[in-house]
Amino acid sequence: MYDRLKGFRDFYPGEMSARREVTDTIEERVRRYGFREVGTPALERTEMYTDKSGEEIVEELYTFEDKGSRNVALTPELTPTVARMVVAKQQALAKPIKWFSTRPFWRYEQVQQGRFREFYQTNVDIFGTDEPAADAEILAAAADVLTGLGLSASDFEFRVSHRDILGGLLESLESDVDTQAAIRAVDKSEKIDDAEYHELLVEAGLEYGEAEAFDAVLETDDLDDLVEFADTERVEAAVENLRAVLDATEDFGAREFCSVSLETARGLDYYTGVVFECFDTAGEVSRSVFGGGRYDDLIEGFGGQPTPAVGVGIGHATLSLLCQRAGVWPEEELRTDYYVLTVGDTREVASDIARKLRDLGHVVEVNLTGRGFGSQLSYADGINAETVVVVGEQDLEDDAVTLKDMASGDQMQVPLAEFPPESGRPTYDDYA
Amino acid sequence: MYDRLKGFRDFYPGEMSARREVTDTIEERVRRYGFREVGTPALERTEMYTDKSGEEIVEELYTFEDKGSRNVALTPELTPTVARMVVAKQQALAKPIKWFSTRPFWRYEQVQQGRFREFYQTNVDIFGTDEPAADAEILAAAADVLTGLGLSASDFEFRVSHRDILGGLLESLESDVDTQAAIRAVDKSEKIDDAEYHELLVEAGLEYGEAEAFDAVLETDDLDDLVEFADTERVEAAVENLRAVLDATEDFGAREFCSVSLETARGLDYYTGVVFECFDTAGEVSRSVFGGGRYDDLIEGFGGQPTPAVGVGIGHATLSLLCQRAGVWPEEELRTDYYVLTVGDTREVASDIARKLRDLGHVVEVNLTGRGFGSQLSYADGINAETVVVVGEQDLEDDAVTLKDMASGDQMQVPLAEFPPESGRPTYDDYA
Repeated sequence: MYDRLKGFRDFYPGEMSARREVTDTIEERVRRYGFREVGTPALERTEMYTDKSGEEIVEELYTFEDKGSRNVALTPELTPTVARMVVAKQQALAKPIKWFSTRPFWRYEQVQQGRFREFYQTNVDIFGTDEPAADAEILAAAADVLTGLGLSASDFEFRVSHRDILGGLLESLESDVDTQAAIRAVDKSEKIDDAEYHELLVEAGLEYGEAEAFDAVLETDDLDDLVEFADTERVEAAVENLRAVLDATEDFGAREFCSVSLETARGLDYYTGVVFECFDTAGEVSRSVFGGGRYDDLIEGFGGQPTPAVGVGIGHATLSLLCQRAGVWPEEELRTDYYVLTVGDTREVASDIARKLRDLGHVVEVNLTGRGFGSQLSYADGINAETVVVVGEQDLEDDAVTLKDMASGDQMQVPLAEFPPESGRPTYDDYA
Repeated sequence: MYDRLKGFRDFYPGEMSARREVTDTIEERVRRYGFREVGTPALERTEMYTDKSGEEIVEELYTFEDKGSRNVALTPELTPTVARMVVAKQQALAKPIKWFSTRPFWRYEQVQQGRFREFYQTNVDIFGTDEPAADAEILAAAADVLTGLGLSASDFEFRVSHRDILGGLLESLESDVDTQAAIRAVDKSEKIDDAEYHELLVEAGLEYGEAEAFDAVLETDDLDDLVEFADTERVEAAVENLRAVLDATEDFGAREFCSVSLETARGLDYYTGVVFECFDTAGEVSRSVFGGGRYDDLIEGFGGQPTPAVGVGIGHATLSLLCQRAGVWPEEELRTDYYVLTVGDTREVASDIARKLRDLGHVVEVNLTGRGFGSQLSYADGINAETVVVVGEQDLEDDAVTLKDMASGDQMQVPLAEFPPESGRPTYDDYA
């Protein structure tokens, strides 16, 4: 007997049916915005990550040398791959490029609630426009995904910030600050206590007084305070951009889900503009459900023409925690329209009935064993069959079948001339 | 600029939309039989393959040591994984267990037409019944998949055989034969010339005369000749089983797609009963499109209760070659219901229209750039928009929008009271 690897999951049919329903809803919602599905490899050259990405990813990579002596890595995220794809066909692709995909990724990290070594994400990205409308469309599409799953503004919020506000505020300080380190400190600020947070800021180069003032101004409700604090064009432009994005979310019907939260920094170093994270308003899902933002420099860093970009990666594991907390996770159960039960030598007719019902698009199981009536009925119950079609030798002598409603146990004979139907999905009730 | 790895593929939206349509059809067809989707890991312990599987797989594995010093492998096929899953929950699962899944697998092998290092399969399996009806249902479901894609009996055939016929015939010979080696020789027989084939049989232990007689009897049209040649219970039982499976395919509506072909042996060593391969009747796809069969010993070999099993792995790469050859591969193109074009400061109304159209389930793009009329129209053409909804300042003064049919170029104003509609997907023609 073999074990599954730690941090990897097997999904049996009940759980999988709920996951499939959720994935279908996510994809259906983003398709409506004109995002187009792409397919991407599970392996990439390791250098694609080691050259550019943040250290946190590299440490967690599944890397190895393949049989052709290439250093390869299991993809830990989608963004570098789609950046590579954009660069490879940059001239041929009409802008804006709007792509999505759902697939697993892999990171060797500590397994915990909502975090696995193999994890599924739906990534949604727009390349080729730096207009605030693009950032807002990503937020609106993400909101539509969540409301499509049955969640509401009382269940989740998007905490929105802008990298240039944090970066610009830090840059405006007297001290020589390691901006990336300071932003990483901000990103952690909600998970650690104030003393530790301020210490991380000081390690990043801030004077202690600057750290306190910086921390304080991030708490403001008035974006003009930030412009005044920094007094730089960079912060002024960032605030203007953030406001323009929020204005566009108003037009797009997603403003109600967004709040400004300057502590939201996103861990990845490649973000350049607006960044956001989705949180559970009830706080039961303790960490960010998912996040995204603008990354205008990545394509150029990959050797392409300068190409602004913005996107979101919707992690299914944390999303399922949120859905479960909010009571909107689908039932984890099988669904079967008909079980066609044979008694005696009736397979030919039973198979014909099953085939006609399947041609109407229904889920139909037939007897694939040597079982008798009771045992078949018990199996039909186990697969949650709505209707059992009994095809007995006696029924066939009457030119009929017996329809049995599995919920009530009621049954009646129906003439073969009336069943299977030409269309529809009739049950016992339709004939009774 | 980074390169994609050899044997791995990027799927851009046009090609991906065709692939998605095909995958949806495949899955829809097998769902109708009551096959239930499962989700499985991309990595497994390497020993799961090295302990049991045929050498051909092991040589092609992507294996490495993970950061926890485990020997792991990228899954080269699904069967060992689902066998592991069946063993892990054997008591809880009602039999027959009917599972399917679509996902990539990985083998480090020579890249050629229809063969990649990362390749997609839909696997469909039944565990827990050794009835011929189960083998026949796998054949019938596979046939429904192909006819669902638009293929017909003139496009493909299932060549059906039985491992115990080959094995039993070999066993009945005077010589001491290496059965697995001889079956591998049979599996190769159509790809090599007769002399080489006979030589492989001789290497497997057959006398030269036996090799010729064995080769000859495999060509017979009458299954009774096989029973007579071997004169053993094993071959008699195998022939009886094969006939019973073919009889069941008759009831299930799939007999017309099946022909008996005893040279069909399937390379994998774990097959035990009926085996089959799908071939292109036009011969343009030179190798087997896909194959499957019965593997009654695998679950027990994995430490489970004896559990008969039968399944098929539908490879998408060769299937797409067959579909293309037969002219049924879907159009590789984008599809967009509406592009909502803004002229002037009309985003608020345009966004509202887009949102209402999306709520009806349509694919709707809006302007995410600073572009003018002509440039937006050109983009709408590029995404194959059926209808452009022009929301100009002048239109709004008239309480109207302009609908433009992109195929004809015709356009007309429609009152905002009539568009967007309450339901449906109206185009220019519906108002003209």
